[in-house]
Amino acid sequence: MNADFDLVVRKAKVATASDTFLTDIGVREGRIAQMGLSLGPGRREIEADGRVTTPGGIDAHCHLDQPIAPPARMTDDFESGTRSAACGGTTTIIPFAAQHKGGTLRAAVDDYHRRAKGRASIDYGFHLIVSDPTPDIIANELPQLIAEGYTSFKIYMTYDDLKLDDGQILRLLALARAHGAMAMIHAENSDCIAWLTQNLLDAGLSAPRYHAASRPMLVEREATHRAISLAELVNVPMLLVHVSAREAVEQIQWARNRGLKVLSETCPQYLFLTAEDLGIDDSYEGARCVCSPPPRDTASQQAIWAALADGTFTIFSSDHAPFSFDDPHGKKPDGKEVAFPHIPNGIPGIETRLPLLYSEGVMTGRISVNRFVELTATNPAKTYGLHPRKGTIAIGSDADFVIWTERPGDPVALTNAMLHHAVDYTPYEGRALSAWPAYTVAGGEIVWDGERFLGTPGRGRFLARGLPTIVPGRPAERAAR
Amino acid sequence: MNADFDLVVRKAKVATASDTFLTDIGVREGRIAQMGLSLGPGRREIEADGRVTTPGGIDAHCHLDQPIAPPARMTDDFESGTRSAACGGTTTIIPFAAQHKGGTLRAAVDDYHRRAKGRASIDYGFHLIVSDPTPDIIANELPQLIAEGYTSFKIYMTYDDLKLDDGQILRLLALARAHGAMAMIHAENSDCIAWLTQNLLDAGLSAPRYHAASRPMLVEREATHRAISLAELVNVPMLLVHVSAREAVEQIQWARNRGLKVLSETCPQYLFLTAEDLGIDDSYEGARCVCSPPPRDTASQQAIWAALADGTFTIFSSDHAPFSFDDPHGKKPDGKEVAFPHIPNGIPGIETRLPLLYSEGVMTGRISVNRFVELTATNPAKTYGLHPRKGTIAIGSDADFVIWTERPGDPVALTNAMLHHAVDYTPYEGRALSAWPAYTVAGGEIVWDGERFLGTPGRGRFLARGLPTIVPGRPAERAAR
Amino acid sequence: MNADFDLVVRKAKVATASDTFLTDIGVREGRIAQMGLSLGPGRREIEADGRVTTPGGIDAHCHLDQPIAPPARMTDDFESGTRSAACGGTTTIIPFAAQHKGGTLRAAVDDYHRRAKGRASIDYGFHLIVSDPTPDIIANELPQLIAEGYTSFKIYMTYDDLKLDDGQILRLLALARAHGAMAMIHAENSDCIAWLTQNLLDAGLSAPRYHAASRPMLVEREATHRAISLAELVNVPMLLVHVSAREAVEQIQWARNRGLKVLSETCPQYLFLTAEDLGIDDSYEGARCVCSPPPRDTASQQAIWAALADGTFTIFSSDHAPFSFDDPHGKKPDGKEVAFPHIPNGIPGIETRLPLLYSEGVMTGRISVNRFVELTATNPAKTYGLHPRKGTIAIGSDADFVIWTERPGDPVALTNAMLHHAVDYTPYEGRALSAWPAYTVAGGEIVWDGERFLGTPGRGRFLARGLPTIVPGRPAERAAR
Amino acid sequence: MNADFDLVVRKAKVATASDTFLTDIGVREGRIAQMGLSLGPGRREIEADGRVTTPGGIDAHCHLDQPIAPPARMTDDFESGTRSAACGGTTTIIPFAAQHKGGTLRAAVDDYHRRAKGRASIDYGFHLIVSDPTPDIIANELPQLIAEGYTSFKIYMTYDDLKLDDGQILRLLALARAHGAMAMIHAENSDCIAWLTQNLLDAGLSAPRYHAASRPMLVEREATHRAISLAELVNVPMLLVHVSAREAVEQIQWARNRGLKVLSETCPQYLFLTAEDLGIDDSYEGARCVCSPPPRDTASQQAIWAALADGTFTIFSSDHAPFSFDDPHGKKPDGKEVAFPHIPNGIPGIETRLPLLYSEGVMTGRISVNRFVELTATNPAKTYGLHPRKGTIAIGSDADFVIWTERPGDPVALTNAMLHHAVDYTPYEGRALSAWPAYTVAGGEIVWDGERFLGTPGRGRFLARGLPTIVPGRPAERAAR
Repeated sequence: MNADFDLVVRKAKVATASDTFLTDIGVREGRIAQMGLSLGPGRREIEADGRVTTPGGIDAHCHLDQPIAPPARMTDDFESGTRSAACGGTTTIIPFAAQHKGGTLRAAVDDYHRRAKGRASIDYGFHLIVSDPTPDIIANELPQLIAEGYTSFKIYMTYDDLKLDDGQILRLLALARAHGAMAMIHAENSDCIAWLTQNLLDAGLSAPRYHAASRPMLVEREATHRAISLAELVNVPMLLVHVSAREAVEQIQWARNRGLKVLSETCPQYLFLTAEDLGIDDSYEGARCVCSPPPRDTASQQAIWAALADGTFTIFSSDHAPFSFDDPHGKKPDGKEVAFPHIPNGIPGIETRLPLLYSEGVMTGRISVNRFVELTATNPAKTYGLHPRKGTIAIGSDADFVIWTERPGDPVALTNAMLHHAVDYTPYEGRALSAWPAYTVAGGEIVWDGERFLGTPGRGRFLARGLPTIVPGRPAERAAR
Repeated sequence: MNADFDLVVRKAKVATASDTFLTDIGVREGRIAQMGLSLGPGRREIEADGRVTTPGGIDAHCHLDQPIAPPARMTDDFESGTRSAACGGTTTIIPFAAQHKGGTLRAAVDDYHRRAKGRASIDYGFHLIVSDPTPDIIANELPQLIAEGYTSFKIYMTYDDLKLDDGQILRLLALARAHGAMAMIHAENSDCIAWLTQNLLDAGLSAPRYHAASRPMLVEREATHRAISLAELVNVPMLLVHVSAREAVEQIQWARNRGLKVLSETCPQYLFLTAEDLGIDDSYEGARCVCSPPPRDTASQQAIWAALADGTFTIFSSDHAPFSFDDPHGKKPDGKEVAFPHIPNGIPGIETRLPLLYSEGVMTGRISVNRFVELTATNPAKTYGLHPRKGTIAIGSDADFVIWTERPGDPVALTNAMLHHAVDYTPYEGRALSAWPAYTVAGGEIVWDGERFLGTPGRGRFLARGLPTIVPGRPAERAAR
Repeated sequence: MNADFDLVVRKAKVATASDTFLTDIGVREGRIAQMGLSLGPGRREIEADGRVTTPGGIDAHCHLDQPIAPPARMTDDFESGTRSAACGGTTTIIPFAAQHKGGTLRAAVDDYHRRAKGRASIDYGFHLIVSDPTPDIIANELPQLIAEGYTSFKIYMTYDDLKLDDGQILRLLALARAHGAMAMIHAENSDCIAWLTQNLLDAGLSAPRYHAASRPMLVEREATHRAISLAELVNVPMLLVHVSAREAVEQIQWARNRGLKVLSETCPQYLFLTAEDLGIDDSYEGARCVCSPPPRDTASQQAIWAALADGTFTIFSSDHAPFSFDDPHGKKPDGKEVAFPHIPNGIPGIETRLPLLYSEGVMTGRISVNRFVELTATNPAKTYGLHPRKGTIAIGSDADFVIWTERPGDPVALTNAMLHHAVDYTPYEGRALSAWPAYTVAGGEIVWDGERFLGTPGRGRFLARGLPTIVPGRPAERAAR
Repeated sequence: MNADFDLVVRKAKVATASDTFLTDIGVREGRIAQMGLSLGPGRREIEADGRVTTPGGIDAHCHLDQPIAPPARMTDDFESGTRSAACGGTTTIIPFAAQHKGGTLRAAVDDYHRRAKGRASIDYGFHLIVSDPTPDIIANELPQLIAEGYTSFKIYMTYDDLKLDDGQILRLLALARAHGAMAMIHAENSDCIAWLTQNLLDAGLSAPRYHAASRPMLVEREATHRAISLAELVNVPMLLVHVSAREAVEQIQWARNRGLKVLSETCPQYLFLTAEDLGIDDSYEGARCVCSPPPRDTASQQAIWAALADGTFTIFSSDHAPFSFDDPHGKKPDGKEVAFPHIPNGIPGIETRLPLLYSEGVMTGRISVNRFVELTATNPAKTYGLHPRKGTIAIGSDADFVIWTERPGDPVALTNAMLHHAVDYTPYEGRALSAWPAYTVAGGEIVWDGERFLGTPGRGRFLARGLPTIVPGRPAERAAR
């Protein structure tokens, strides 16, 4: 057969971050070569039949196979993690290569390449985590890594083994500014958490639900204001990760109204869980939902939804941090029910991120499908230097996309058995889904057909990323014009 | 010749509201039929050669040949007005059909069709202006007109012959909600203006510059708060037109942060003029810049720029209101220099809107080219029910676009002689432009080639518009998904 | 007997708006002549024995015997009203002399003097209500009345027979500025109320509880913003009466943070009642609590308490508007249960104002006794030109004060039978009071001894008032220094 | 002679924080025994003749003879400092006893008693400065000192030898809450200052004026937000000292509007100086005005004035920190012009505080004389447990007061030669004063007669202070009722 294309999708209702239109998509060599109706034949064809087709998701905040303090061990490595991502409509991930205090960033990156290589079935980049910004690292190693395509790094304001003080943060923000990189900030006030934690433990309050009591909204609000102030002083954009609280949203809006370039991210757990999911009694079951910041109350859920809809948030990520519940390396360290500060932090969500937001956001009319695309693909791509190769359906872009099945009147109840990660639970067990991926196409290959994972470990490529292009007035953006 | 397309643009750097990519554009029967590189031949071809190509501008706020109180008469009719628009990169306009007190909306629409027919060289729709919302008009005429494609109407809070009281506004907002139409509100407190005007005239202060003194920022802020409150009570989205003042922006941001669906528009005069352009002495020259709201101070200019960049504003329009300066029907009524309340209100700008914003916004890096597209084309199309037929470059859309010449280091000084309107001045005389349209293509026809207007009076079609699709959660948007 | 004083109070714990101290109080000729311990003998003596002694209350917002549209008729005239006030610790009242549309202010004042004369047992002044500000009234009559000691007037933004438009309000505010008078504004958006009322009645919803639905918080917030804006334009202080809503408080704080001189008042009904007191079903019982603005929700109650404590509010008044429940001239017009718009507006409270605030504010520690004095006596005196003759316990001031009985552990349940007004109910029936006046002394005479009213109709004098002295930087204040 | 009183002041126009009235003041044994006109004779009499008489000033923030790092040495000890205070109308001071890191608070207090004893001519208490909150100090020493009358302590967020981290601050705030003490916080972000300082020095920018550049408004705003957050977490009132910046005021108002109990203080330098007083070139003259936070711009001056007038600020203090300019122990360490970080921080102002505020605040009408009293005497007394013994003119209070000379049309130019401190300059040299103390009376003794200091070193007594009584709802306040 004399095919014009490797793959043709017929009559897709393509949604970008701004537009929706009916077209065929012609793919050649993994890229989108042509659009228009009545394209010539493809070696392989999919009848979209008017179904909504969005750019493949980019999960810009997830943790896979990240080395941490024993006995904790992440349940998902790059093989199970990228498989799960693909089946949920995600075609690119950017997990974290974390520096160890005393170690180099290069060592972290090298280690992380070893972990990913031959296992990833979708494309991936690495964010860096800087936990020990020595003068040499700031002067040499980090600029060199940025030049090599690791163009974003994360700063922690809490966790004893990761947190940086305000002076260190200022130096890293100045470096981000000088090199055009993107700083991501985890904003919680560490001393407040420590003080509350000690008070709770002293009072004998150690069940999972006290995890939420140890990190109230104020703790996030204060650190958010501080992070904004530090970035304002340096005059550099930055991104606040996993924003969870009403008052943190207010700080972000206050900053933006003053003209500051504050980007921000939220995650499914702040839309779909509350502190009550950590337990309303002292049962250990709530350990499943222990993550930081903790899920909050319904007022914060509403504020997070509003900020998703109105353009406040830039990105919607999973913060997938895979620990099984019944696991001595997971939520029960060494097999024990431990006090809340010792429960491994994080919940799984790499596969459910897109179906949950599509079902509860797009299908209900809370957000448009274009805003869905912007939050889950286009903005992550722009923020982390992957656009327009990733994050859109446009001529020349990688052929990464999702064709959706919508069943508004006939939802399916989510169970962990449907998922493809290695974790033994999902926090969203039983939740009704009214939409999910019929196909996931990555680089022109069908990796999920609605029933089976069809990808291959090792087909995912490492992405050396460019500089962020999202912030008006910055050099990279002007270049990209 | 056996052409695949009526027109092919080669190697255009297409910018949509979200993406930028290199492609050929294949046009058939006035619509975009195909995109991709190496398209087949077109009957006509343009070598874009990598130049930025944006969707044709939609000027959603302009006045042409609108009947008003004598001796004032608008200088531009649909022929000169659409010609000027086309030469400035605009391919769709939505001027106003204004009800006369005591008359019907239908009469206004019929009259307006007569004025446009055979004269317009680009496509056009009509907003309605409701100045006399009788029970019959609310119950019957206005719903009928909305159904026929006049899906937006304007409400004035000032001007004696147009202004509505709060009760009338509430009834119209309720109607907008019931029928899915978009209400546009001119927000200035009429009584405050009257009181200040009388005080100024009583003190013998009548020069053009006192126009600004008679309508200070507070007057707009109060009416903005009130308009927001009325819309909040009815629970309906609406759009605030020609926002000019720092404190009005603050009200809008306050409303949006509370989850209200407040859309808003600004215009070139609030970026590029200040109250000083109305005169710093009592000279009559400043009458050229008399418009309402008046240009403000540099602090408001900065606030308007910031709100353009950060996503606060939805739309960037011209508010073109064409009156010549040396004209007994224009700024010198019956040939006289008159007291400021009697100067015809408004300034020309239909042709300069896009080049000014591209030059001072995109070329300087204040906003991205995608945000430029969003403000000048995509959002106007979504707000007023023209998307995706208008407002983007996508398969199936009308072939309306602009190919830009950028000359960053070699700007041109704007003169009124370069322009194609019938007005005898431009308020931006002498301003440096670093970009302007090399080609304007409307419905697949080249109507401007960078030197000559090539359009034909009468080729412009009336657009019966659909319902707004911009606001999350409204029926129209869900249908559009 | 050779007395040094007409009256001596021994060992009073005197509280002023700023200080608390133990002293005897020596009274001569109705004024405070001396303070210190061990004063010489008085013709009459009271052993305060360390009990808290506060300045006599000034009720700066109450309605007595005010002519209104039949069949409604106020239950309390000056005799019963001032008797009730005195028994509740109030020694000065400022009711309203209301202009009739088409009539003069002078006529209203003359009529009101007739009603008061020979009946009032405590001192009184009159605020004016301006319902028809003709040019002559603004140019001549009102300035003349201000000069005669009617130094404050009220402006209504709602009620068909009273409301003024923004232009009229501006002219009255300008007059207030020119003559140093105090404008009081009732801020509710009239058109919004009319629109909601019509919608409710059209839907058959006419029970008392829909009174609250017809005047939601937004209606007050909008008018508050507008009133603030008008005063800002004129650059004059003014006072917002009976503030009830959380969002209105936010507007006031916003204005004050911007440096505007906005004074404000709240009333007991916004601390102690909620909309539920108007009924949770369609019973007519709730008509007892119909007043405007209506009682709101617990969130607004908390905001009102916070604003009382933190200094936002200037004055705490009763807005006593006496209509009996089982009365064809009261809450059942012509004996009928009527639709909510026809229920006479207002509730009684002239006697309960101070005991309620003392019990629930001072005894609970929410506010200090000094703040109690400031809100109920000192600030009303300063705001309305009575200070320092009234509103404090200081050398030279009128001998008006209250000696309190505090029974923190042994409260009394309030019943209407305890009260001395002519109204057949109190909205606070059954509420626990932990403090009430042991003695009320007015002009050196004991008018209430904890059990009996000892005053005499006619002993109250008319107070020609001076200009306000409360606002920094105004001429009156500087003169008062 | 058979005198009734030790001292009688005749016809004083007494101003308290709430009232103004004409009276004689009769003093016995250092206390105010009687008020009223025509009091009996005093052994000593002053004819006030209607002049304004205010409570003696309380300077709640001043530094005298405080041991610091050499070569810096404070120029004023308790003898010259209290002399200067008395001549400026101040009758009580509360300087700081500063803990040395590694040392005890008790040692600091003992040392400070030695420095004060026999030297102070007016009464004094001590605040503590906690620089090293060891577990033992928190558990034992500090509670014991609070019980002994040192009921307030200061926390620094900057200065390497003093600053505490957030965890230490939380523990101290919890202690303040447990014991009813008042925490005072110096809010500037230390790391930001260090980073900016290093950048400036690296760029060779070391002149005095760069002191302001090293501590911009943002640095104070961030720390203010953080301090508020920490106090909110602990749920305890606290006081922010020497607030200087517009944005810090906004944070305080934001907090108060949310119901938080945030007290605050400002100082003359933030009303009367700007950053330009530190130099507009690299001259060393500006070292005279180096203090922290630095003087700011006119916008902040206006915000500080507005917050003084509107009730935002609680206290007006001097922050007197006496270093001579031409002094090897002062502004020229070891005789050298040093880089800005090495200039001793602080400016003199203990004597000019009241005359400056009276002249520029009261005489101009910006604030009332009652607000002057509140800021300079009554509120400091309430905040620091001295009320009603100090801070007012009332029966039973200490006979501390100031009789003022007002010369509105005939001001005097201030020169350092007029002052009684030991510092060789005043930052206010040449400024016009339209009012100053005619008499200062302390404990019934005339210590300043308008020309000469008449006090005696050693007559000042140490004040063991009670708990704060200013905050509504706290136990101490309720007890004080």
